[in-house]
Amino acid sequence: MLIKDVSLIQSGQLLRGRDILINGNRIAKIGRDLKDEDKDETIDGHGKLAIPGLVNAHTHLAMTLFRGYADDMALMPWLQEKIWPLEAKLTKEDIHWGVKLGCLEQIHFGITCYSDMYYFTEETALATKEMGLRALLSGVVFDSQPNLLIEAERFIKRWKGDKLIQPVLGPHAIYTCSEETLSWAKETAEKNDIKIHIHLSETKGEVEDCLHKHGLRPVEYLDSLGLLSDGLLAAHCIWLNESEIDLLAKRAVNVVHCPVSNLKLASGIAPVARLLDAGVNVCLGTDGASSNNNLNLFEEMKTAAIVQKNACGRPEVMRAEDIWRIATENSYRAVGLDLGLADGSLADLSLIDLRKPWLCPQSNILSLLVYSMASGVDTTIVNGKVLMNNGLIPGEAKILETAQECFLRLTS
Amino acid sequence: MLIKDVSLIQSGQLLRGRDILINGNRIAKIGRDLKDEDKDETIDGHGKLAIPGLVNAHTHLAMTLFRGYADDMALMPWLQEKIWPLEAKLTKEDIHWGVKLGCLEQIHFGITCYSDMYYFTEETALATKEMGLRALLSGVVFDSQPNLLIEAERFIKRWKGDKLIQPVLGPHAIYTCSEETLSWAKETAEKNDIKIHIHLSETKGEVEDCLHKHGLRPVEYLDSLGLLSDGLLAAHCIWLNESEIDLLAKRAVNVVHCPVSNLKLASGIAPVARLLDAGVNVCLGTDGASSNNNLNLFEEMKTAAIVQKNACGRPEVMRAEDIWRIATENSYRAVGLDLGLADGSLADLSLIDLRKPWLCPQSNILSLLVYSMASGVDTTIVNGKVLMNNGLIPGEAKILETAQECFLRLTS
Repeated sequence: MLIKDVSLIQSGQLLRGRDILINGNRIAKIGRDLKDEDKDETIDGHGKLAIPGLVNAHTHLAMTLFRGYADDMALMPWLQEKIWPLEAKLTKEDIHWGVKLGCLEQIHFGITCYSDMYYFTEETALATKEMGLRALLSGVVFDSQPNLLIEAERFIKRWKGDKLIQPVLGPHAIYTCSEETLSWAKETAEKNDIKIHIHLSETKGEVEDCLHKHGLRPVEYLDSLGLLSDGLLAAHCIWLNESEIDLLAKRAVNVVHCPVSNLKLASGIAPVARLLDAGVNVCLGTDGASSNNNLNLFEEMKTAAIVQKNACGRPEVMRAEDIWRIATENSYRAVGLDLGLADGSLADLSLIDLRKPWLCPQSNILSLLVYSMASGVDTTIVNGKVLMNNGLIPGEAKILETAQECFLRLTS
Repeated sequence: MLIKDVSLIQSGQLLRGRDILINGNRIAKIGRDLKDEDKDETIDGHGKLAIPGLVNAHTHLAMTLFRGYADDMALMPWLQEKIWPLEAKLTKEDIHWGVKLGCLEQIHFGITCYSDMYYFTEETALATKEMGLRALLSGVVFDSQPNLLIEAERFIKRWKGDKLIQPVLGPHAIYTCSEETLSWAKETAEKNDIKIHIHLSETKGEVEDCLHKHGLRPVEYLDSLGLLSDGLLAAHCIWLNESEIDLLAKRAVNVVHCPVSNLKLASGIAPVARLLDAGVNVCLGTDGASSNNNLNLFEEMKTAAIVQKNACGRPEVMRAEDIWRIATENSYRAVGLDLGLADGSLADLSLIDLRKPWLCPQSNILSLLVYSMASGVDTTIVNGKVLMNNGLIPGEAKILETAQECFLRLTS
């Protein structure tokens, strides 16, 4: 596949008139006047910007089905009165269509890889593969449902080594998993050489409970169990003290910042500028659509930047280039994949039509991407396969229709 | 003009299969199975939602030309090193294309009316009329440029009574306008029966300076000069104490909340939940694209909601329906126009294509509009005239191209 006459970003500057040659699932070469010997597919990139695929590093994708069903509520009534009753009714078919709906939306926003934690991982994996996205999938694990541990191990066995799906362990949080469960997660992850995905320090209450129960703060507690490593994706990390921040840096933990969900649930503002200063690998996630309520990673970038500037009282922090690094390089490190727009990388990328009023004038390209993007991308390619071309995804109408039916049945 | 088979919002619910009949510049009737005797134009509304026109109640539209030119800087170096030198080079032609670029973007986001404060109001008015938008235009007034007062009075005389352009007085702020200038603004506004548009309590420093200089806080100081009334649009209003909030309510002042710009410049978070509780008429503005950096009022709605929830520590505040009221009814009151989707109202409205993944499932329509909208609208009508149809605006490419040329010349 050859993408002709496209623009690229190099050292924050816009380069025009480049070609991208894709062979199989990898970028063979980026340069000028390239030829495609196979001539199987050519995409006209004129007027468009190629960006490397974005990673949504924390979500619960099937919950896209619950979008807009329950908002503006405190966390516990939201869970107890709305989300848990709906989750109790979920079938495999709901998961199939909920995941496809979430994939559809992510494709529109240039997300080529997502890191998920939810039930029914088998159905999630199958639906994700049908949609062509890359994913790190973790079956959520709670003490209250011991069968989830068995399912998690089975899922790892079945999917380890898949080209698109990376199985991951998902102990839900320190307040829903015992020391035994957390230690099991650590051992199972080590044994299988896979990552762990957890919620960490999302609320003030979690810190207070942990101090009361273990005499340690959440990050210290996880460290005492040996869970902190570069194989950990820790979502939220809002309520941290200085020594926890240093510990996260020292252990090379990947912190997944989810500012939109954190604000909407009034959970607080993660100390991201401080985390970055300490050298922590911060990346971004949308969280589930039921607490966001979309899967727009451009919105997440902008919110992360402007909220942190205000929280620090300094407009100079979290510059466009910092955010772009978080959304790309940092995320690629977190998921351990060979992504990015470079010769030899996995062919996961998107094209953005630059001929939009909100991207005019074409001044600072990173500023436009972080602060001005006000719509989706128009072409998305994952693993060398075109998933969306000029805004069109095959089968989109059928997914929207069936997801709507699932929602109506679940809420009837 | 007849819009057939469209969806509407009534009491927060989605009503399908309605028709909207437009006669001249007003909505003649909304109902079922309407006929258009004139048969001049029919728009297929199937699968789409009609919403009343949105109002961007505080912006500096020609500054859309400066988008992305200078970000991530503290306010004073940003102004002194970047914005003022550029503004000194602005020509009438730059204003023409900058305003057209801003109108283009606003049309894409369903903004049918904007309230502006800037230089070259004559060129702004002419370009806005060419684009077909409605606007409240105020020439900015500073003590340091006395000719601006004369220009402001001339502008009012020329444009008073225009169908689309409402001239307004724009004393910049209490720290750039003397008591004499502010009193002149009050008298001139009363004499001409027009509104006043001002920046108020945007920074902590403004409050401190005002206390030091006048022994009063900014809102109290403006009240002492008689400027607080229902004819005042006060942008920002971040640093308020309880008695100032009560005073704004008592005097029926319209507060224009600009959360994205306030966060990006690290100015602070306005106490909007408290303002609403006190009965203040709060509406929304994007501020200029150079401090936002787009003109997407849907983004402004979402940011306003989620940031306030977190600031209050209560996810229950600023519900979707509260935000929607702010963006519609409250704004209509602020600009004093007969807007809204109702028989007899001005025909200012937009159509949103509901067949998008981020608007699926169709659960709570106000939640979808406030929390999930992740692109523009697809049809915009102002004063009975179609400005955009299915995403297409005549002349768009030419505006983008010329705005780019202006930017390159200004920054060369």
